[in-house]
Amino acid sequence: MERLKVEGEGGSEILLGIGLASLASLAPADRILVTDANVRHHWGHLMEGERVLEVGLGENAKTLSAVESLYEGLLRFEADRSTCIVGVGGGIVCDVAGFAASTYLRGLDFGFIATTLLAQVDASVGGKNGVNFHGLKNHVGIIRQPRFVACDFQCLETLPDREYASGLAELVKIAAIADASLFAFLEAQVEALRNRDRSCLEKAVARAVALKAHFVAVDEQERGERKKLNFGHTLGHALESHLGLRHGEAVSLGMVAAAELSVKRGLLAPHEAQRLTALLDRCGLPTRVALDLDALLPLMARDKKRQGRHLAFVLLQGLGHGVIQHLEVAELREALS
Amino acid sequence: MERLKVEGEGGSEILLGIGLASLASLAPADRILVTDANVRHHWGHLMEGERVLEVGLGENAKTLSAVESLYEGLLRFEADRSTCIVGVGGGIVCDVAGFAASTYLRGLDFGFIATTLLAQVDASVGGKNGVNFHGLKNHVGIIRQPRFVACDFQCLETLPDREYASGLAELVKIAAIADASLFAFLEAQVEALRNRDRSCLEKAVARAVALKAHFVAVDEQERGERKKLNFGHTLGHALESHLGLRHGEAVSLGMVAAAELSVKRGLLAPHEAQRLTALLDRCGLPTRVALDLDALLPLMARDKKRQGRHLAFVLLQGLGHGVIQHLEVAELREALS
Repeated sequence: MERLKVEGEGGSEILLGIGLASLASLAPADRILVTDANVRHHWGHLMEGERVLEVGLGENAKTLSAVESLYEGLLRFEADRSTCIVGVGGGIVCDVAGFAASTYLRGLDFGFIATTLLAQVDASVGGKNGVNFHGLKNHVGIIRQPRFVACDFQCLETLPDREYASGLAELVKIAAIADASLFAFLEAQVEALRNRDRSCLEKAVARAVALKAHFVAVDEQERGERKKLNFGHTLGHALESHLGLRHGEAVSLGMVAAAELSVKRGLLAPHEAQRLTALLDRCGLPTRVALDLDALLPLMARDKKRQGRHLAFVLLQGLGHGVIQHLEVAELREALS
Repeated sequence: MERLKVEGEGGSEILLGIGLASLASLAPADRILVTDANVRHHWGHLMEGERVLEVGLGENAKTLSAVESLYEGLLRFEADRSTCIVGVGGGIVCDVAGFAASTYLRGLDFGFIATTLLAQVDASVGGKNGVNFHGLKNHVGIIRQPRFVACDFQCLETLPDREYASGLAELVKIAAIADASLFAFLEAQVEALRNRDRSCLEKAVARAVALKAHFVAVDEQERGERKKLNFGHTLGHALESHLGLRHGEAVSLGMVAAAELSVKRGLLAPHEAQRLTALLDRCGLPTRVALDLDALLPLMARDKKRQGRHLAFVLLQGLGHGVIQHLEVAELREALS
């Protein structure tokens, strides 16, 4: 087991290779678990005797009414300020549980046991908690750090291939914006990673989490540097709601488009964009889709990162180096056409 | 105009004697006002040309669905991260507006123009924002400091007597727990205060706000010292929901009961408890009610300040000096009987 510390308000501890089987050593006895039916189906035997609340499955479950249901459960269990909420699941469980915990009684302690690759390398780290609103992704929420994030590699065994590949997209993303050597490692080990080779996985997750922790530490409130983590996400979020794709699948398409835009602007060599597309492809992720700009641009224009007419868009200045550029929606239409 | 600074995350500026008439100097041009029908009825002419959202009237309007309606309004007005939300009203408007602003797009800037005495001396200062849940007062919310709080004395002119008296209760409260000389000032000037004498009012509000700002500065997250501000509130909140009283009326009754409990425990002299009751009485506030303990104790047991079986209860060790004692619910029943 490896330990990493994330700086920031209440700084969380990230633990690798420990999880549900060690629940008692992770969280205080006064705890309430939040999970979903999938995780419970596969790993419910490790939750016996626990107080458990469930959220629904899928992105459509990430709503204010899911948060309200959790509040009701917390009331029923008589949670008080000494109760710790433990989200056990993927990004959706962690997002909803984190938002409910952060606002119930003006904020309870909470931690996550991340059971999907996506949650391990991205969703559960960084303190962003929130829900969708009127189809807009993570439109309502707050930033508050969990007390701990445990990356449970055992739980990855039961993850469907499509979910697993979705997590690989976030590994590729962080390498593309911040670490050329991690990118090369992913290229070299892509087969082992797809086969869920434990030692390969641990190395990649450990590096990705350390990188993400660094972005959070230098810019918790996402005023500058941390925005780079949105590489592939501005278009990705729009595609995700519009086409009903998995998060990582949409981000994969968003990264390909952003890389092409980077090439058009002379920031990225064509062969580098090609390396990115090839890696995503070998991860089993989609890299080509017809963009319905008339539908997507209005969605992108409502992105959280918008300020006035400008969108903060992340481009690549070489592989391993993300840069933020401010684009008008009109420029974007032209560039993506 | 006087300026005070509150320390804490994002530390707010508190401005006395400035308000709606000076809106343009208080908030940036990209702003959206949140108010209610009462304030709009009396002062709508000062909001012409503004983008305005309304919340309903009364404590029953302080719900998650009110917050959701504000989110919808913010979406309609295309609020982005450079938009500032300005709550113009009393505690309910400020609570709902502050919570919506703190969670929309993971947190917009916000400020308050406090138009009631209660909001000026208490509700708008300190960064607590939230709503009621299943009849439990402020059960869901977060702590986040507004950018500014302006105490608009002009708006007090149209405040109904009962609302005004409700604000006096919070003035008495802060004097009782923290400032014997403010308490003596209130005793000496109670007639002038009831007549809304501007100079008297400014002195009292300035002192109360400075005291409250101090409590917030030393303990923003309410882990210790700040809990003293709940003097009269543990019973008060239960009475407020149970009897449908104004906040200050319920707090008045709660303070009288807490003072009697302080006398029983030998912390407060009987004549001091009598001075408190007499002052509240002269403020036009209720000081006597038959306590239906069977109904109230379960409500108190769900108080946010509960940890396990114990309630943090604020008592007086002499006028001007609050102390926190931990009582079991069973002890409380005996003491209040």
